[in-house]
Amino acid sequence: MVGTHPSLPPATGPAKVWLVGAGPGAADLLTLRAARLLQSADVIVHDGLVEPEVLAMARPDARLISVAKQRSRHSVPQAGINAILIAEARAGFRVVRLKGGDPFIFGRGGEEVEALILAGVAVEVVPGISAAIGCAAQARLPLTHRDAASVVSFVAGQCKGLSDQVWTGLAGPGRTLVIYMGLANAADIAAKLMAEGLGADTPIAVVADGTRPNARVHCSHIADLGALVAREAIASPAIIIVGDAVAHAHVPAHFASLAARAEEVI
Amino acid sequence: MVGTHPSLPPATGPAKVWLVGAGPGAADLLTLRAARLLQSADVIVHDGLVEPEVLAMARPDARLISVAKQRSRHSVPQAGINAILIAEARAGFRVVRLKGGDPFIFGRGGEEVEALILAGVAVEVVPGISAAIGCAAQARLPLTHRDAASVVSFVAGQCKGLSDQVWTGLAGPGRTLVIYMGLANAADIAAKLMAEGLGADTPIAVVADGTRPNARVHCSHIADLGALVAREAIASPAIIIVGDAVAHAHVPAHFASLAARAEEVI
Repeated sequence: MVGTHPSLPPATGPAKVWLVGAGPGAADLLTLRAARLLQSADVIVHDGLVEPEVLAMARPDARLISVAKQRSRHSVPQAGINAILIAEARAGFRVVRLKGGDPFIFGRGGEEVEALILAGVAVEVVPGISAAIGCAAQARLPLTHRDAASVVSFVAGQCKGLSDQVWTGLAGPGRTLVIYMGLANAADIAAKLMAEGLGADTPIAVVADGTRPNARVHCSHIADLGALVAREAIASPAIIIVGDAVAHAHVPAHFASLAARAEEVI
Repeated sequence: MVGTHPSLPPATGPAKVWLVGAGPGAADLLTLRAARLLQSADVIVHDGLVEPEVLAMARPDARLISVAKQRSRHSVPQAGINAILIAEARAGFRVVRLKGGDPFIFGRGGEEVEALILAGVAVEVVPGISAAIGCAAQARLPLTHRDAASVVSFVAGQCKGLSDQVWTGLAGPGRTLVIYMGLANAADIAAKLMAEGLGADTPIAVVADGTRPNARVHCSHIADLGALVAREAIASPAIIIVGDAVAHAHVPAHFASLAARAEEVI
């Protein structure tokens, strides 16, 4: 079906959607499978977190449909996204639903799979490099380390429901905690973790614009997290990494924060 | 340097190693960046977990050095692996250190980065799809889900040190726990988690040969884990996923276990 003009959908073949992880930012961190599907899709339904360089890999005649979410609201509600996917697949188009990172790590991919199956639309999920994994690699910051962490956990720190979330035990000796989307609540997150017993001097790193050429890695300790974000004017997208494994990071000099670089001897 | 004959290493350029995640099994789950580096490497130092289909992407004249580990011992000790990487990089070769999954999720990548930097060898880390993420996608099993899990944690369940590991709080309501390399200890792992308070009817899935065409997804509950592994004669490689998110899986019929398929109406 590759190359079919979108106004002439193929009449055969079952309706199908590929739910594809776009990875953490850099276009060459897509998987080979994701790139191939992206290049053969008739319709691409994508989030705001997907970079223009990734979308540029689509066929010139592919239709791009943005369902970008904003922090406080959805520009297209989830039910609306599901309806678009179902309608386009039933119309016979090859539909790729492209989601930042991995579809099953804070991507609501599970809900889309359920809706598609309920509608009788076949769905295949293609994994992506999640932000934590992409950012850690670029920062040369091991998420697990025999001397520091044998557990790594991922949570989401959005505005809504932070106080309802139970993170007890996720951060502390031997454990690495990665917080997605926590920047706006950084001070509250630090207070929450310390109230649950985390030592004030626990190492942290904030990785902003991770995997992109302008990435910045800011290292400090948990008691300083809120002040660090304000002082360095760190902006989204960013992830926060908490735990002793951070002390084993060897951040490349060109990605280190200006403050860290000013401290360097060489 | 692409195409340089290995017996004629380039005389210029600083010594450098690329620490590259080979992903969870299927060769097309490598990232575009990993594939490009693999295709340009003079020397590839790889683990036993890296599939032949992935190694087949190397240049025909690349030298492949296996440092495959076995469960109870390392065929090449870590210090020996580090020495190989340093020597090959210093000799001027483009060295790719290829590790199954992601280098920083139970890959000892942090130790290799430290050794290389200490030796004055430049090192860049390229992330890979970790087994949990690749297996979950294939099984259509969301690791996080708004109705079931807002936390996902990864641990390693090797033979050694299981009783020393503290997993308290990692499994339970609202949390997904993924156990790597836990098959040989499945019964002990179930007992450990239930002793720490996990409900006996908590859903689990064991994904064997994940992301490969012969993958099998076995769903049950935690109290049955040890018996399930024996009954179905599940063999490594496999991961164990524990938590209510498993109940939201829509395992494709052709990957479901024979027992599950026998129960299907259609």
